[in-house]
Amino acid sequence: MSDVKKVVLAYSGGLDTSIILKWLQDTYQCEVVTFTADIGQGEELEPAREKARQFGVKEIFIDDLREEFVREFVFPMFRANTLYEGVYLLGTSIARPLIAKRQIEIARQVGADAVAHGATGKGNDQVRFELGYYGLEPNIRVIAPWREWDLTSREKLLAYADQHGIPVARNKRGDSPYSTDRNLLHISFEGRVLEDPWVEPDEEMFVLSVSPERAPDKPIYVEIDFEGGDPVAIDGERLSPANLLAKLNQLGGENGIGRLDLVENRYVGMKSRGVYETPGGTILLTAHRAMESLTLDREVAHLKDELMPRYASLIYNGYWWAPERKMLQAMIDASQANVSGTVRLKLYKGNVTVVGRKSAKSLFDPHIATFEEDFGAYNQADAAGFIKLNALRMRIAKRLQG
Amino acid sequence: MSDVKKVVLAYSGGLDTSIILKWLQDTYQCEVVTFTADIGQGEELEPAREKARQFGVKEIFIDDLREEFVREFVFPMFRANTLYEGVYLLGTSIARPLIAKRQIEIARQVGADAVAHGATGKGNDQVRFELGYYGLEPNIRVIAPWREWDLTSREKLLAYADQHGIPVARNKRGDSPYSTDRNLLHISFEGRVLEDPWVEPDEEMFVLSVSPERAPDKPIYVEIDFEGGDPVAIDGERLSPANLLAKLNQLGGENGIGRLDLVENRYVGMKSRGVYETPGGTILLTAHRAMESLTLDREVAHLKDELMPRYASLIYNGYWWAPERKMLQAMIDASQANVSGTVRLKLYKGNVTVVGRKSAKSLFDPHIATFEEDFGAYNQADAAGFIKLNALRMRIAKRLQG
Amino acid sequence: MSDVKKVVLAYSGGLDTSIILKWLQDTYQCEVVTFTADIGQGEELEPAREKARQFGVKEIFIDDLREEFVREFVFPMFRANTLYEGVYLLGTSIARPLIAKRQIEIARQVGADAVAHGATGKGNDQVRFELGYYGLEPNIRVIAPWREWDLTSREKLLAYADQHGIPVARNKRGDSPYSTDRNLLHISFEGRVLEDPWVEPDEEMFVLSVSPERAPDKPIYVEIDFEGGDPVAIDGERLSPANLLAKLNQLGGENGIGRLDLVENRYVGMKSRGVYETPGGTILLTAHRAMESLTLDREVAHLKDELMPRYASLIYNGYWWAPERKMLQAMIDASQANVSGTVRLKLYKGNVTVVGRKSAKSLFDPHIATFEEDFGAYNQADAAGFIKLNALRMRIAKRLQG
Amino acid sequence: MSDVKKVVLAYSGGLDTSIILKWLQDTYQCEVVTFTADIGQGEELEPAREKARQFGVKEIFIDDLREEFVREFVFPMFRANTLYEGVYLLGTSIARPLIAKRQIEIARQVGADAVAHGATGKGNDQVRFELGYYGLEPNIRVIAPWREWDLTSREKLLAYADQHGIPVARNKRGDSPYSTDRNLLHISFEGRVLEDPWVEPDEEMFVLSVSPERAPDKPIYVEIDFEGGDPVAIDGERLSPANLLAKLNQLGGENGIGRLDLVENRYVGMKSRGVYETPGGTILLTAHRAMESLTLDREVAHLKDELMPRYASLIYNGYWWAPERKMLQAMIDASQANVSGTVRLKLYKGNVTVVGRKSAKSLFDPHIATFEEDFGAYNQADAAGFIKLNALRMRIAKRLQG
Repeated sequence: MSDVKKVVLAYSGGLDTSIILKWLQDTYQCEVVTFTADIGQGEELEPAREKARQFGVKEIFIDDLREEFVREFVFPMFRANTLYEGVYLLGTSIARPLIAKRQIEIARQVGADAVAHGATGKGNDQVRFELGYYGLEPNIRVIAPWREWDLTSREKLLAYADQHGIPVARNKRGDSPYSTDRNLLHISFEGRVLEDPWVEPDEEMFVLSVSPERAPDKPIYVEIDFEGGDPVAIDGERLSPANLLAKLNQLGGENGIGRLDLVENRYVGMKSRGVYETPGGTILLTAHRAMESLTLDREVAHLKDELMPRYASLIYNGYWWAPERKMLQAMIDASQANVSGTVRLKLYKGNVTVVGRKSAKSLFDPHIATFEEDFGAYNQADAAGFIKLNALRMRIAKRLQG
Repeated sequence: MSDVKKVVLAYSGGLDTSIILKWLQDTYQCEVVTFTADIGQGEELEPAREKARQFGVKEIFIDDLREEFVREFVFPMFRANTLYEGVYLLGTSIARPLIAKRQIEIARQVGADAVAHGATGKGNDQVRFELGYYGLEPNIRVIAPWREWDLTSREKLLAYADQHGIPVARNKRGDSPYSTDRNLLHISFEGRVLEDPWVEPDEEMFVLSVSPERAPDKPIYVEIDFEGGDPVAIDGERLSPANLLAKLNQLGGENGIGRLDLVENRYVGMKSRGVYETPGGTILLTAHRAMESLTLDREVAHLKDELMPRYASLIYNGYWWAPERKMLQAMIDASQANVSGTVRLKLYKGNVTVVGRKSAKSLFDPHIATFEEDFGAYNQADAAGFIKLNALRMRIAKRLQG
Repeated sequence: MSDVKKVVLAYSGGLDTSIILKWLQDTYQCEVVTFTADIGQGEELEPAREKARQFGVKEIFIDDLREEFVREFVFPMFRANTLYEGVYLLGTSIARPLIAKRQIEIARQVGADAVAHGATGKGNDQVRFELGYYGLEPNIRVIAPWREWDLTSREKLLAYADQHGIPVARNKRGDSPYSTDRNLLHISFEGRVLEDPWVEPDEEMFVLSVSPERAPDKPIYVEIDFEGGDPVAIDGERLSPANLLAKLNQLGGENGIGRLDLVENRYVGMKSRGVYETPGGTILLTAHRAMESLTLDREVAHLKDELMPRYASLIYNGYWWAPERKMLQAMIDASQANVSGTVRLKLYKGNVTVVGRKSAKSLFDPHIATFEEDFGAYNQADAAGFIKLNALRMRIAKRLQG
Repeated sequence: MSDVKKVVLAYSGGLDTSIILKWLQDTYQCEVVTFTADIGQGEELEPAREKARQFGVKEIFIDDLREEFVREFVFPMFRANTLYEGVYLLGTSIARPLIAKRQIEIARQVGADAVAHGATGKGNDQVRFELGYYGLEPNIRVIAPWREWDLTSREKLLAYADQHGIPVARNKRGDSPYSTDRNLLHISFEGRVLEDPWVEPDEEMFVLSVSPERAPDKPIYVEIDFEGGDPVAIDGERLSPANLLAKLNQLGGENGIGRLDLVENRYVGMKSRGVYETPGGTILLTAHRAMESLTLDREVAHLKDELMPRYASLIYNGYWWAPERKMLQAMIDASQANVSGTVRLKLYKGNVTVVGRKSAKSLFDPHIATFEEDFGAYNQADAAGFIKLNALRMRIAKRLQG
């Protein structure tokens, strides 16, 4: 396998990707370049630099991608009111295309011929990473250690670490009760103790939110301003995309908002159980729909709703960089020009309630009752004709086909 | 207009339909048959009989349709996880086709040549009633007094009532602050003080639920059993459809569940603001999705999700009796055979949280990790091929189209 | 009805719209502005000017809209491979939005407060015209004489003409055997002798094409060049949109191509039988699909195919100017950037056969068999994994649900 | 690889599957059971029995599946007017699920633990076979020799044949100019000389049809009767499904009907060029659409059209036995109850022209013009209201959003 000369590894600095780093060096006898991204996972990244150096890595990339993540990935996705399988806000899925893109950019910059990631062979993330890699750079060599090596148990992994002098934090010695993924949009939990879908998760597991029970006893009100389909301000204060989402996370988390317990269908063909916290995203989805309810044409809104599940599946399955996702995005974006205004929300113990919306582009006409005077738009007698012609095909059918 | 001989009126016994009753007798010089249905609106119906008698009505129909309503209309709709415009549970829409059907049955039974309803000329209900009438009986004559008469203001209505000796309850003298519609699935509020979409409704308005703030401080847990897509028992107790929904309404209402404040798009072309309470339905939707998440094939679930908005629009717009709704229903029903099992929910101050689901038909395989031994279903190496071929078209495109 | 001051009439110069012109002047006591458009109907337009003058019309608009028609309406529609109900190329439907738009522009220019058209009250065209008018100018007053007047029979129309000195060509005295509509894309025939869907139309009826039987006994070959989804040249000769379509009409017509005999569903709720000749459009549809087959991504092509029927219905029903049509168009247009190259066709007695296609943007890779060497794109062993994971959900279901 | 004990091979009796037969015996040291199906490929099957015997095969299955093929697979598919990528009638795709099903039945009957097929690793057929196998029998072992062995060139195959005494017909010594697949619905050609999509195929290639040029100079007329969506008689003569399709093939083939030259998108990710002859199917598609045009509700027809491309992809990709295909089929079948009557067609030199359709279930009402008298169905004034309310949302938008 000496055909790989240089590989860019998506490196978190944690135990697993450190083992991968070492394993790549040993197995492929190649140079490893590490890439560590801040997408809001809430961890210090500098330790990753130090660890990489200890493995002799010469080219180390540590990028703060938080603004790009929210602006170019999270917000476009929310323009579609995207939910996978009716409820899931795609917090993990939407981060992978950005990682893949940046990894390929670095590969080009450093002249690497391969990329590697730490996703396992049974999950969705391997697909999302690799469809991104291949879609952006068709000739890239992809290394997925979890599908290749024989470190197929926790014991073997730890033995490998010990054998190669990779430090293992004490709390990593035992099996963690579940695996997690975190970024500025959400944190996920899956596996192990969650594998029985009949068992409720422990309260101790949650990270981004208090439980509704522990949230304050008084509601708070918040106003979100939108421009062209994207949120731009909270309670009148303009914020950058990442700061805005962080602020919503704080508000949501404090008020017990955004938890989800789900059995979902993975792209690789199996069902899995996931638990998610998406405090800010949950608020944002509700607010965006409310903004659209006031400013979007009915048929446009309905068409968006009908295509949303497919758009969601594309993101969930890893097709962010595919032409059909871009094509749908072109349509979604074209619908958002007038989605501007303010939504007022009440947050209280897990509830996000829309209590007001206003917009200079509102299509809600309070004078509709009387706007006959304005331009003759609504004459009640018109409804009779409207109904009669809409009923005609059914009347004929009843008469002729019985 | 003496061409109408006998008309079946959907009669609530309230002021408006009493005025209509009298107006029909006067204007059309025809016999009026009244039809009053119990669909769970929570009112005594016998007073309607007495009132109708006072107007000289000879044929009076008072039917308890609650079980049929839930079994034949509400439950089939919930099989599709139906939401109009992403959030609305269609509580009003789903009752209209039943009223229309029964009214036509009565018209045939009593030999009436016309039917009449009390819906106004600007709303959706006129469409729902009349598409039902025409679809079931193409030659029926439809009378919609609100589109015909000149009683176009509250004052004129009251004057007409006084003039014709129609008793007006004191609290009906003034304008009510909003109009409502109630049945076993929900209550709706719209119009008047709600017409400014920026203003939050008063807490006093709500009927079926306490506010989350006033709900108990301790969560309760509830288990719902499903068979073939429909709920059949709560906490192990089998209940008839109507009783089951009533029980869910009670549980939801006590726990502050099911309120919705919405700007929606009417079929007649305008936006309107509605506030709804659907306590039991909100629980049921969450539970049904959870049951499906465990027992439904991925592609079947996704196809249902993609067609759901259209199915919802058909119901909202009044096309329950149309062939395309039946065709979609055939598909939806065909998907539900294995949607059986139990969902465990936590209800707390407005939140409905799925905390467990189990099923003898579960497609969730906890042994997937190891079921290689069983029948060789999952080999991690397969994922590489899966990804490679799914990526192929994108790789070729990148290479050839750049 | 003296509230109308000035009306812009879509005026053909023929008998019917001449009667309308006079009727408008008499009934509404208003000034009439005539608008006559050349959209390729193959008639002299100057006589319309003279006739209008005879009625005292002062503002007369005669516009050659052929290039705009093809460039801004026909070609965008063909980018979607649009067919209504599987077979109809929408020749009439696609012309109406242009007429409506120009009529509104003129109304603004001359300060008219109303527009009028000559479509009847049972067809689709009234809807197409009026949705265009209203969508572009919400306060416009629309006059549809066929829905208003009492000239409800041929006899009454002719009597009105005679009475008001409107000249009637001899061949217009009797009923024409069918009504027609013609423009650069097609000619349609409907009504009267065609109303029995079991009866084959007479050969004499056809205008734009010879029958396949009378077409030449030798095939001809033609090459069409596309750029960005639109045709730009025939046999290497660049042509303007209108000239290109005219050339295709000639080639198609000479070779018996593009006839269609159809029972279709009108938007107003009834079925009708139409016969169409669309010689150039039939060739263009085949060519465009062939160009896409070589240059479009699979999923993009499939998504277009799934949305096409809805797009076609929008055009058929008159929603060209509606936001949902524009939204779909944005998506369709976004897909066409690489739809460039050349298609070679054989035309022979009604058949249009694709015999070759080539493109600098081709996604067809003849070296796929061996391009393993290139970049490792296709390894047959990958197919096993691809199939295994795609089958997984079905295997689990069979095992667990039986 | 001695873990396989008995394998059921889809065996044609030809050179390739004979080599596979021998290779399976040698490589897997297992018993081979052969299965040869008559699905209308037009070849003698008894020679396959004799050849199998010569290889020592003890269990030989030769089944005439023609009626089942047409009744249970072809006709259900045609109920949806199924076309892949707008033009392809899926002749190969629709046969694979039947082969897979029968192979699994035989495997169960003879106690085999594996199945094998002769499809290559780059095509769609491997997917179709194997998704069928796995979907019907999740634990089955699948052997795809073309993906496993090293007989990767024509020379190696012939050498293997010679070495093992497998007779090679003289005309099989050289490369055939293309590969073909034939059954009662169609014949396909692909590969080799067809791989340049710019080159027209030779006239000599075609099997089932004369060219339009060589077809008779006189049209013939044919009438097809439908019942419940399926054809049942030709020119008044009731025929079994297979005989009916054979008759249509004869009529179509004689008249130059049903050739198609296509670049298509394979499920495995590449484009390929195929040429097809589907004479009877081409007639049937046209006839079925015409029958539906008279008897199907508009919205039902449109919904079918919108879902058809997805249904077609499911069949093309091999998902016949998947739950989502069955779910769509339930919907399609539910639509066909009234699709009964007669379609009259003209066949002439490649053209299939509908010239008449009639039905006792017709929804075409010739008296629509006057049926006001009947039941007041159509009042031209209704159209004004119909248009006004349909335009309302656009008028409001123009006024408020400009």
